[in-house]
Amino acid sequence: MKTTAVIMAGGKGERFWPKSRSNMPKQFLSLTGDGKTMIRLTAERHLPMVSWEDIYVVTNRDYVPLVTEQVPEIPAENILAEPTARNTAPCVGYAASVIQQKYGDAVMLVLASDHLIKNNRMYLDTMAQAAEIAIEGDSLCTVGITPSYPETGYGYIHFGYDENTPKHRGVYTVKKFVEKPDLATAKEYLNSGEYLWNSGMFVWKASSILDRIRKLMPDLYNGLSEIAESRGEYDAEAVLERVYRTFPSVSIDYGIMEKAEGVFTIPGSFGWDDAGSWLALARINKTDENGNIVNGDVITIGTRDCIIVGGGRLIATVGLEDTVVVDTDDTLLIARKESAQDIKKVIENLKICNRRSLV
Amino acid sequence: MKTTAVIMAGGKGERFWPKSRSNMPKQFLSLTGDGKTMIRLTAERHLPMVSWEDIYVVTNRDYVPLVTEQVPEIPAENILAEPTARNTAPCVGYAASVIQQKYGDAVMLVLASDHLIKNNRMYLDTMAQAAEIAIEGDSLCTVGITPSYPETGYGYIHFGYDENTPKHRGVYTVKKFVEKPDLATAKEYLNSGEYLWNSGMFVWKASSILDRIRKLMPDLYNGLSEIAESRGEYDAEAVLERVYRTFPSVSIDYGIMEKAEGVFTIPGSFGWDDAGSWLALARINKTDENGNIVNGDVITIGTRDCIIVGGGRLIATVGLEDTVVVDTDDTLLIARKESAQDIKKVIENLKICNRRSLV
Repeated sequence: MKTTAVIMAGGKGERFWPKSRSNMPKQFLSLTGDGKTMIRLTAERHLPMVSWEDIYVVTNRDYVPLVTEQVPEIPAENILAEPTARNTAPCVGYAASVIQQKYGDAVMLVLASDHLIKNNRMYLDTMAQAAEIAIEGDSLCTVGITPSYPETGYGYIHFGYDENTPKHRGVYTVKKFVEKPDLATAKEYLNSGEYLWNSGMFVWKASSILDRIRKLMPDLYNGLSEIAESRGEYDAEAVLERVYRTFPSVSIDYGIMEKAEGVFTIPGSFGWDDAGSWLALARINKTDENGNIVNGDVITIGTRDCIIVGGGRLIATVGLEDTVVVDTDDTLLIARKESAQDIKKVIENLKICNRRSLV
Repeated sequence: MKTTAVIMAGGKGERFWPKSRSNMPKQFLSLTGDGKTMIRLTAERHLPMVSWEDIYVVTNRDYVPLVTEQVPEIPAENILAEPTARNTAPCVGYAASVIQQKYGDAVMLVLASDHLIKNNRMYLDTMAQAAEIAIEGDSLCTVGITPSYPETGYGYIHFGYDENTPKHRGVYTVKKFVEKPDLATAKEYLNSGEYLWNSGMFVWKASSILDRIRKLMPDLYNGLSEIAESRGEYDAEAVLERVYRTFPSVSIDYGIMEKAEGVFTIPGSFGWDDAGSWLALARINKTDENGNIVNGDVITIGTRDCIIVGGGRLIATVGLEDTVVVDTDDTLLIARKESAQDIKKVIENLKICNRRSLV
């Protein structure tokens, strides 16, 4: 059976502001030293398993030019433009419907466009095993990440065995998806050995996920069928436009995964990072001898453990510690690492003051 | 007797980098909320005592256009252009010689172009008294500042009485000029009540200072005479150019004041600030409720005791404390207040790397 990769690239992530903007979200930025953007890294990572013509991108209509520019190898018809953002359930359903129509059926690797993987080979082994499980039965497979510390910013997967657990080594039944915990709970999860981080990556057959959507989100299913019937007709665009707007804004986790039968997980320990804020740069990239990540024309004097992302100008830092500096043509951000979560207050402030060109 | 003001404006101060540059030194910057540049504030401060046509500026030839632009009320012939920088003794001598030639004799208020005064009225009272002393005798009068804390960055004046001390209230004999002390010594000075800060402001008659120069720096005196004789002649410019280059680079403090007879001091407590670094902005200007000085398009979130000097762009600070941020079109400085003295290392670095356009 054909294996496809479906890259979800509609996010408007604000957490890399001011480099990320509503017209240039995180997945289209380069955060690693190699200069490749997140979406390009995501696509290339799967090439040993999926050929370019079987890679799909679901994104907001506005971002199609960015996708075309950054991953020109992906065929234009594989770039699925959502008329409006409706969270991941409609996004995944739309891709599944297109893939079913084209291939009859196929395995879908459903992927975030803006996560990083340290060990690509281990990662591909995990995805290959997940694909095997998906092909064998009608299961929904989610990739869990073996937690390395009590992170409070992720959702967790409580996993175990039951009579339906596939007879493969390293495959488990999902008992429950749980929300972001507080620190005490996160520590319990970590120590119990029964929890994984929810990476938001899924593997299943198009037929398997569409079947669950039919049962659990019938309105979405019917809408997707209507769109599928119109494909190739003169009014395809108009139908997509009209029907997509009626879809509820629901995540695939909430809409399907938490309620469906036959949900399994494969724990991965290939080094996963959701690159959720500027602080991730210090985890992802090599630091200098003073613990700094420095990018651009920067002179550091007595500067330690800083993340400095330059723009066109000289940046001189003197005696600075534990600070994030991000310089762009129109905006400069200086944030203490410990206050990084408050960067969103700046964005709120800009929205309130109607300065949307800076957001 | 006529009173003149002589503003020394040849300094190349680097301590307000990156706003100050070799082609735009501190005296031509505005550091106060009113938008007036330091040299303009200096000139205007003396108007109750000295009319525009009696204000002189001695500056480097390169800065004449800046002076003309910022204080156009000063007559062009009062702007004395040094062909080359030779510290303050030649600068003061040059002005004294021009003033003696024009007026026969006159009181000179010799002033830094880049200091700030809080209480102008008290300041003018002090200067008026100094002018009286200068007229009465042949003395050299220096304005001392009553120290308010044990500053280690200033020179001090040890003062007292002797048989020559003028019989005016609040006028003292200078026993000794002393160099910048260490902290323990500065504390002793402060507690003794016998020391003043050396403000670098002087009051004397042109004839008095020229007489001391004749005795203590005869080569300088002869050179000044040669320049004076050529004034108005066809070769005046060439003589100035040739002779000025032969002058030694010596301060008026070292060349004259420390060695001369008849040196008195008048302590002032009118609120003086030499505005010696970016940190001065927090002393000079009103801070917001979080202790910040903010200038330009700035959003502060959880930011305390910072000095933020914006350029054209939005600056957002998050969780920042005790930090100086200065943004210009081509350069951005971010320095912890406690490391402000290391800003000069950035400038050294730029010079070494031959990036003089940024210095």
